[in-house]
Amino acid sequence: MSLAHGRPYLAIPGPSTMPDRVLRAMHRAAPNIYEGEIVDLTATVLADLRRVALSSSHVAIYISNGHGAWEAAIANMFSKGDKALVLATGRFGISWAEHARGMGVEVEMIDFGRRTPADPARLEAALRADTERRIKAVLVTHVDTASSVRNDIAAMRAAIDAVGHPALLAVDCIASLACDEFRFDDWGVDVMIAASQKGLMVPPGLGFVWVSDKAVAASKGSDLATPYWNWHPRLFAEAYYQHFAGTAPTHHLYGLAESLKMLLDEEGLPQVWARHAALARAVWAAFDAWGQGGEFRLNILDPAARSNAVTAARIGNGGADQLRGWCEREAGVTLGIGLGMTEPGAPDAGDYLRVAHMGHVNAHMTLGALAVMEAGLQALSIPHGRGGIAAAAAVLAATTK
Amino acid sequence: MSLAHGRPYLAIPGPSTMPDRVLRAMHRAAPNIYEGEIVDLTATVLADLRRVALSSSHVAIYISNGHGAWEAAIANMFSKGDKALVLATGRFGISWAEHARGMGVEVEMIDFGRRTPADPARLEAALRADTERRIKAVLVTHVDTASSVRNDIAAMRAAIDAVGHPALLAVDCIASLACDEFRFDDWGVDVMIAASQKGLMVPPGLGFVWVSDKAVAASKGSDLATPYWNWHPRLFAEAYYQHFAGTAPTHHLYGLAESLKMLLDEEGLPQVWARHAALARAVWAAFDAWGQGGEFRLNILDPAARSNAVTAARIGNGGADQLRGWCEREAGVTLGIGLGMTEPGAPDAGDYLRVAHMGHVNAHMTLGALAVMEAGLQALSIPHGRGGIAAAAAVLAATTK
Amino acid sequence: MSLAHGRPYLAIPGPSTMPDRVLRAMHRAAPNIYEGEIVDLTATVLADLRRVALSSSHVAIYISNGHGAWEAAIANMFSKGDKALVLATGRFGISWAEHARGMGVEVEMIDFGRRTPADPARLEAALRADTERRIKAVLVTHVDTASSVRNDIAAMRAAIDAVGHPALLAVDCIASLACDEFRFDDWGVDVMIAASQKGLMVPPGLGFVWVSDKAVAASKGSDLATPYWNWHPRLFAEAYYQHFAGTAPTHHLYGLAESLKMLLDEEGLPQVWARHAALARAVWAAFDAWGQGGEFRLNILDPAARSNAVTAARIGNGGADQLRGWCEREAGVTLGIGLGMTEPGAPDAGDYLRVAHMGHVNAHMTLGALAVMEAGLQALSIPHGRGGIAAAAAVLAATTK
Amino acid sequence: MSLAHGRPYLAIPGPSTMPDRVLRAMHRAAPNIYEGEIVDLTATVLADLRRVALSSSHVAIYISNGHGAWEAAIANMFSKGDKALVLATGRFGISWAEHARGMGVEVEMIDFGRRTPADPARLEAALRADTERRIKAVLVTHVDTASSVRNDIAAMRAAIDAVGHPALLAVDCIASLACDEFRFDDWGVDVMIAASQKGLMVPPGLGFVWVSDKAVAASKGSDLATPYWNWHPRLFAEAYYQHFAGTAPTHHLYGLAESLKMLLDEEGLPQVWARHAALARAVWAAFDAWGQGGEFRLNILDPAARSNAVTAARIGNGGADQLRGWCEREAGVTLGIGLGMTEPGAPDAGDYLRVAHMGHVNAHMTLGALAVMEAGLQALSIPHGRGGIAAAAAVLAATTK
Repeated sequence: MSLAHGRPYLAIPGPSTMPDRVLRAMHRAAPNIYEGEIVDLTATVLADLRRVALSSSHVAIYISNGHGAWEAAIANMFSKGDKALVLATGRFGISWAEHARGMGVEVEMIDFGRRTPADPARLEAALRADTERRIKAVLVTHVDTASSVRNDIAAMRAAIDAVGHPALLAVDCIASLACDEFRFDDWGVDVMIAASQKGLMVPPGLGFVWVSDKAVAASKGSDLATPYWNWHPRLFAEAYYQHFAGTAPTHHLYGLAESLKMLLDEEGLPQVWARHAALARAVWAAFDAWGQGGEFRLNILDPAARSNAVTAARIGNGGADQLRGWCEREAGVTLGIGLGMTEPGAPDAGDYLRVAHMGHVNAHMTLGALAVMEAGLQALSIPHGRGGIAAAAAVLAATTK
Repeated sequence: MSLAHGRPYLAIPGPSTMPDRVLRAMHRAAPNIYEGEIVDLTATVLADLRRVALSSSHVAIYISNGHGAWEAAIANMFSKGDKALVLATGRFGISWAEHARGMGVEVEMIDFGRRTPADPARLEAALRADTERRIKAVLVTHVDTASSVRNDIAAMRAAIDAVGHPALLAVDCIASLACDEFRFDDWGVDVMIAASQKGLMVPPGLGFVWVSDKAVAASKGSDLATPYWNWHPRLFAEAYYQHFAGTAPTHHLYGLAESLKMLLDEEGLPQVWARHAALARAVWAAFDAWGQGGEFRLNILDPAARSNAVTAARIGNGGADQLRGWCEREAGVTLGIGLGMTEPGAPDAGDYLRVAHMGHVNAHMTLGALAVMEAGLQALSIPHGRGGIAAAAAVLAATTK
Repeated sequence: MSLAHGRPYLAIPGPSTMPDRVLRAMHRAAPNIYEGEIVDLTATVLADLRRVALSSSHVAIYISNGHGAWEAAIANMFSKGDKALVLATGRFGISWAEHARGMGVEVEMIDFGRRTPADPARLEAALRADTERRIKAVLVTHVDTASSVRNDIAAMRAAIDAVGHPALLAVDCIASLACDEFRFDDWGVDVMIAASQKGLMVPPGLGFVWVSDKAVAASKGSDLATPYWNWHPRLFAEAYYQHFAGTAPTHHLYGLAESLKMLLDEEGLPQVWARHAALARAVWAAFDAWGQGGEFRLNILDPAARSNAVTAARIGNGGADQLRGWCEREAGVTLGIGLGMTEPGAPDAGDYLRVAHMGHVNAHMTLGALAVMEAGLQALSIPHGRGGIAAAAAVLAATTK
Repeated sequence: MSLAHGRPYLAIPGPSTMPDRVLRAMHRAAPNIYEGEIVDLTATVLADLRRVALSSSHVAIYISNGHGAWEAAIANMFSKGDKALVLATGRFGISWAEHARGMGVEVEMIDFGRRTPADPARLEAALRADTERRIKAVLVTHVDTASSVRNDIAAMRAAIDAVGHPALLAVDCIASLACDEFRFDDWGVDVMIAASQKGLMVPPGLGFVWVSDKAVAASKGSDLATPYWNWHPRLFAEAYYQHFAGTAPTHHLYGLAESLKMLLDEEGLPQVWARHAALARAVWAAFDAWGQGGEFRLNILDPAARSNAVTAARIGNGGADQLRGWCEREAGVTLGIGLGMTEPGAPDAGDYLRVAHMGHVNAHMTLGALAVMEAGLQALSIPHGRGGIAAAAAVLAATTK
């Protein structure tokens, strides 16, 4: 007998749970891709993508995943041999750096480990040391999906400005957009990338790149920009197909239009952020309780450096893998695996897991996942403090008191 | 800000949560209704309906809701002026009696109230008193959806047999089928009715009537059996359309075929029952904890008389309505209203609610609903004992320890 | 090799092709059935059902098929022993009469055969002969789905009025509603029935009964009206569940709301009628051409007596069955079987077929079906006149010239 | 009044009509992307992609459109400054050449115009002239979607072999795969590209590249191969995510698995080709008839050089645009626009259109489209020969005679 039969809950940090309305919007015949409704809908989507990033600048849609969006940003910002400064706070920051290196970009990486955010003082120091202004762009993840560290983007901009360095500020918001507060214009971001399958609640298949006027200007003549990745024809398309360098991603556009309407016109972006913040606090309250006198440990000690979209945790002695297995097998909840949390070369001992609270997620889904985890900790006799789920419920109760 | 944005959870006792696979099976073009796959699929559905009731006899599908299935059973079992004995343990038992009266059947009702099951001794006494053998059938709900009382059907059969009374035993399993254990053959049931939208996990729109050979024989010549309700052509159809007295309910059949496959061939009926039993015990554990020193109270004191599909509870001072409102508005959980729990004529004070745990429901969904309720009790400052959700999690943990 | 692989086209007279939007509207989680959106949506649906019948009176929704709607109308209009006058022009008119007889109604039937409409003079004569005014209602099909005869409803009303007979006029529009012009108020109809799966473009599962004030008054005290069929609580519901005598048909309501919006608010009822009329003329043009010098023959000679929703035809020597088989097997088109077109007791020689042009059907679908039929006639070497599909195309070309 | 209300038919050459089953397979919750069913399903999809190309070699899936697949092939086959020989027979061949130039590849193009296929003699001559063996690959479209020319791939291979030139043979089958016969192994193809939205019947969003062992070897060390386009990790993935350079295109994979099952396991590839061939002949028969004495003209004179997937035609005096408008507005059929059929710089006079007969397409759909076109020609008084649709029907009738 298993208690998993019922609606499964996928709590991995992407792809996230999609609203029924989004899936429904995608269940339709193909449209004409030369004229008609898809053209109008695309214009709306592009406008809404700017709104969701609080950006007044430009945005390009790529048929790709997040790695493709990385490549698009790199291809436009750099020519071969140009230099990037990468601030890494987890596996995905490191991978972005490797991706840039793989394209012929010279990369200087500051690795802040996997449990603390990027330090603006070190960024400032690195830029000051770049007396020849060879660094074309600073690359940083807003939230590293692997470590769940959230970086202070406004502080990075301030550090760049303090030096008066001309480098572009490029931010990976794949894990955070429409979950953690993000302000493209206010924070002085030049390039931001995201993808469809997390806070935007659409299946994997689209990458997005927002581009400031400064970045548009800086990207002219980049010799890495191939016809597919070159953002200029996409940003300033004269014919419809140029938005996508060919055939449009018709069904993803229908889904995305629906999800953006839900986020922006129905719930409202500040409410979306507040919801994610409350659910995240509930998760942390449970994790803190379980951490009293047991193996359970939040990965990020400082709450201010934690994402509202995903939380990484450690349960020693392989407890994380055991718990993941129990939750999926017995209770219908799939938690995320640990990713890049051990030293390179070290064996993965199954000590890390992640729980996502991103996108189409409410009190019921999150509390249910936590209650299942608490049941699993007991069932597996993993040492843990008591009262986790009660503490989480109390956090959410307090939001409406 | 509301924490309800996300996948809503409907915890009312029907319609229940439907599996995605069922909805997907229904999202298709209409078939030919004269020949081909729908004919074969109907044969499979009819066989599986017998399996889900552990019945070796006959079954008719009606395009109707549960009230239609009531009417179908009455129309075939009785002629005008015949007598029925109804054992009522809640609003739905009483309504079935009223329905029979409305069709010209003379009804004797034994009302066991709303918090205790039918007493076989009283049934036996009533049958002994029927020396003229005027009672054609005994009508009883297996589970009354309103009160959540579960009756002991085998005991009812034993009472009838003890008297040697020829009355048919007719059971309403609308709320219980595929949730609470039910054995048509073993328990000597003659007529059983159910509907599509609860344990069978399909949208409302189909009623079912299972019929023993004895009931088939007894029903010949009933003058209430109209062409639509008459079960003979449906049970012994020579042409396909006779199964439905006309056009087949094509899309519901596709959905039902899928849900029966999930229940019978994938999970297995004993496992389905065990899952519902475990989830019910978790609900009761939470309710018991909240009931220590507060307003919260389980409606049925005796666990043996509680359904595994739905649980009714009382929170005085209008607390039930307040809690229902909070859960839906703030957390995405819709609980069931109280139904028929106050004295006739008395105003509904909003003191009752019901939580369903029927059908496509797992540990995540149920624990999530309980955790939301606990958060709501706190948010609303409704006096309640602590530790409800922790107790529920512990119950489920124990099932796999 | 078969040329059927592709989107199959079902050209049987119900269930008809459903719009993707309707199926999409039905692909969703269950709603709360006690309050909220489903309650509002039902009010809209009821209003739109009146609009689609051009009726200012009342309408009841039954979870049933068309036969259930027949039974609902009979149960309310008659008490046991009351008399009905049925005007039969095909299998379905005869069946409705048999249904009434099966409920204890005395039936006088005038059978006009299978190729000509009801004659108002004979109706008038029959009513004049009813000097005791025993006839409670005149029952007539607007379009008989089997024969494709269309009756002149206004003429029937005139005949009744000419006699000054108090009988209700009850019309079966199952095959015609939202295809052939129908005017409940203007034509003095008292009771009209329809079902979901034809012109209304929703899966089978709902029956509808429209009721004039006169019929409401006349139906009070009918002793055939059981709790399920009684239209009074449905027409004048105080609580939501009374509209459906129990649980609402949630998913069908979502689908129906969408289809009514398409018919009434987007295309517009006069345009819907005109479209069906044009497509019907195209079908007849093809059939007329094939009928020159071959086996092919339209069932109804008088175009004024043909339905715009379905056309029956004869191809002797079993040609109809052969053609149906070829079209389905080789070309992806399923035509309707002949129904009730042979004398009772005579063997079905496979000489009849029907092609539907009802509901969600456009020039492409209809011309495609005709072209496939023409290909099939050739492939099977069935003698037929040439130029059928060209004639059909010419008819449609002329509509926009 | 418009006769377009009904199921619209999109006859543009991609995206094509998708089977309901494919859309249904994509209407589901996201899966875990680290383990479980999606991993197994991907293995099946990769095997089936080899089967559909009759290829025993390797295949990579890219989240991209067809232009992305072009770029992937170029990025792996060439280093900057390498030379390509492009055989152009329409707009898409020319665009592929431009794409290669845009990536820094030196391109020699032989332009065969828009109405005739590539001449193997000219290919052979060009290769003989390349005495330094600078040409790394010969690029050719199997079917150019714009002109509907089909090239003889086996003849191209023979020409290369006749010279003994080491160049790779790279073929664009975006428009032809699973429509026109294609044999990767037998025809000695080294690189083949396709996309999801045409013969493979899945929404736009996936590009595919098949790679021979020779091409794998030749591609090692290409300096254009970025991390996203590099096919080595995709072809020889050790971890699941490497197949996609990151997050998998989960929903497209579900759809693709379903469509490949339909093509390969249910219908069978030879039957799929035969069906497309028959439908194409029907289209040509109609076009030939209309071309007798009017403006209508097939673009490709030689039937052996026509694609079975799409047919381009010319109607002078802007007739093509007028007809497209009528068919969409009045009859529910959307035809494809002419693309790249006029001289560069010349104004588009609206003289060209294309009708697709690719993918999920049967006799009903194709004959329906032709019949609608015939009606439109008449309605618009465009001079044309008679009997087009009758001729098309006769072609299809003959296939089963």
